[in-house]
Amino acid sequence: MKPHIAIAGATGLVGSEILNILESSSIEPKQVTLLASKNSAGEVYRFRDDEIKVEELSAEKFVGVDVALFALSNDLAEQYVPIAAEHGAVVIDNSSRFRMDPKVPLVVPEVNGDLVNGDHRIFANPNCSTAQLVVALKPLQNLAGLKRVVVSTYQSVSGAGKDALDELWAQSLAVFQQKEVPIEVFPHQIAFNLIPQIDSFLPSGYTKEEKKVIDETRKILNLPDLRITCTAVRVPVFHSHSESVSVDFERNVTREEIVEALKGAPGLEVHTEEYPLPLDVTGSDPVHVGRIRMDEHGGCDFWVVADNLRKGAALNVVQILELWLQQKNVH
Amino acid sequence: MKPHIAIAGATGLVGSEILNILESSSIEPKQVTLLASKNSAGEVYRFRDDEIKVEELSAEKFVGVDVALFALSNDLAEQYVPIAAEHGAVVIDNSSRFRMDPKVPLVVPEVNGDLVNGDHRIFANPNCSTAQLVVALKPLQNLAGLKRVVVSTYQSVSGAGKDALDELWAQSLAVFQQKEVPIEVFPHQIAFNLIPQIDSFLPSGYTKEEKKVIDETRKILNLPDLRITCTAVRVPVFHSHSESVSVDFERNVTREEIVEALKGAPGLEVHTEEYPLPLDVTGSDPVHVGRIRMDEHGGCDFWVVADNLRKGAALNVVQILELWLQQKNVH
Repeated sequence: MKPHIAIAGATGLVGSEILNILESSSIEPKQVTLLASKNSAGEVYRFRDDEIKVEELSAEKFVGVDVALFALSNDLAEQYVPIAAEHGAVVIDNSSRFRMDPKVPLVVPEVNGDLVNGDHRIFANPNCSTAQLVVALKPLQNLAGLKRVVVSTYQSVSGAGKDALDELWAQSLAVFQQKEVPIEVFPHQIAFNLIPQIDSFLPSGYTKEEKKVIDETRKILNLPDLRITCTAVRVPVFHSHSESVSVDFERNVTREEIVEALKGAPGLEVHTEEYPLPLDVTGSDPVHVGRIRMDEHGGCDFWVVADNLRKGAALNVVQILELWLQQKNVH
Repeated sequence: MKPHIAIAGATGLVGSEILNILESSSIEPKQVTLLASKNSAGEVYRFRDDEIKVEELSAEKFVGVDVALFALSNDLAEQYVPIAAEHGAVVIDNSSRFRMDPKVPLVVPEVNGDLVNGDHRIFANPNCSTAQLVVALKPLQNLAGLKRVVVSTYQSVSGAGKDALDELWAQSLAVFQQKEVPIEVFPHQIAFNLIPQIDSFLPSGYTKEEKKVIDETRKILNLPDLRITCTAVRVPVFHSHSESVSVDFERNVTREEIVEALKGAPGLEVHTEEYPLPLDVTGSDPVHVGRIRMDEHGGCDFWVVADNLRKGAALNVVQILELWLQQKNVH
């Protein structure tokens, strides 16, 4: 089956990365439709041998679309995902709008790819920090059971979009030139600083970003009662998210068994001599794990880095698409 | 008593910050001697109404010194701390050389200032990350007992000295100018990057920095069996260290009790509306705590920021000195 694929939000950081990854994949679309806001309509993107003109997003654009890949805000996803589905498209949505909907599978192919089957029209893509975390946690869950997970994130500015990249650049330059530092995208200066707030606050004192990591990890690992907590921090890095993770297990386990389990798991690159850095990892597909070590009480600490626009977003979307196409062809 | 005070390593980041803090303190020295390497000898520093010429470090310079404040490398501390003590000086040492020596009190005045008494000639100042951590942990230990502590650090480059500040600056500029990025102080590029390694690796897989946080916290809190782990990460921030901390307690406790306990504790500034940022905290004396929230299982997560050159180093040294002078005058 050669599918007609639409990318909704094609001109954003995630949308254009979806197009990039699609281009280098083995998927052969019958047609690619690029949808975006009125402002971006008319822009031209190259896809393999074709030039594709961006069209303004509207309901009728989903007529005849087989798969719609959504990289839009929650509000626009809420509005257009059901429309795309009603028009007969299968939707893979990168917003957080449908992730915790019990009827919608929240999929990381390496972890729960079996959920991609003909029963569903809408699939949700997890939060960027969640995606890389569960790829590393799943083999440990299989190995020894997860008793407790403590995560502190070091998240790059690209997670907040194009304007955020520009802001880190502009702020850093302003610091150099001793000019006033422009603050528009982030609530505080991010250049040469840290912001321990991503998204808005909930009454519990957690941010929505932290709650996403907690709830989505539980859903994807199918461990609704997992003891897990998260602190999400923005750091002055352009690309790739890093995470410091501390895990307790249900059963006794050695470092050797953990390294072995991680090395054998899909989507992971295990670093035992050196450790992964966001700068090196950017542009690569795998989730990188390093600094693997046992604490004195049988727990294990490690460091997880992945390109947040790839595994954390666009790559995972395309991987779900590939799975869906496979099962479509098989059944 | 008006003491004769020597600062050994007076021209480094920590040494010159000790002189700054001493200047604005109520301490009235009889004399201040500044000691440094041959390279810096002859440099002139202002201290209140005096100009003080830096002298080359040597054994005989400690003759007649009442208190020697050491901000030197481990090797130089190993050599000169015993010499200073033998010459009759009380030594407050910022190196890690004597910290875990059972005969040497490791002191954070807000936590275990009672150890500063006439029984000891050498006092050790803790690692910068440890100092701010224990100021926040002590009131929680008193409130409900500490069962487990998980720390991830976000450490500024100033912890690695003057050259490290220059390197972050030079690297950031090189990125802007699209020139080759100079890498000399840190093992990798730190500008727009993260390095999950501070100090060298131990056979356990932990770094020495992480082990310091673990061991020194246990020693200062007098909890030799405390379950604590640490991941120490260098971030592209000039000044102030931040920490994401997750704590389990021995007894049930509410967020209100925790906030109350922290607000009532010495050396702490508690942020409940906003949260502390390294950029804002730089140059301030207190340890700043924010993002205080309970997890779903009775644990508490929070965010600790302090100026690593002040509470993490120079300020703590001067606070120990003040305590020592007080007990000297009283007894």
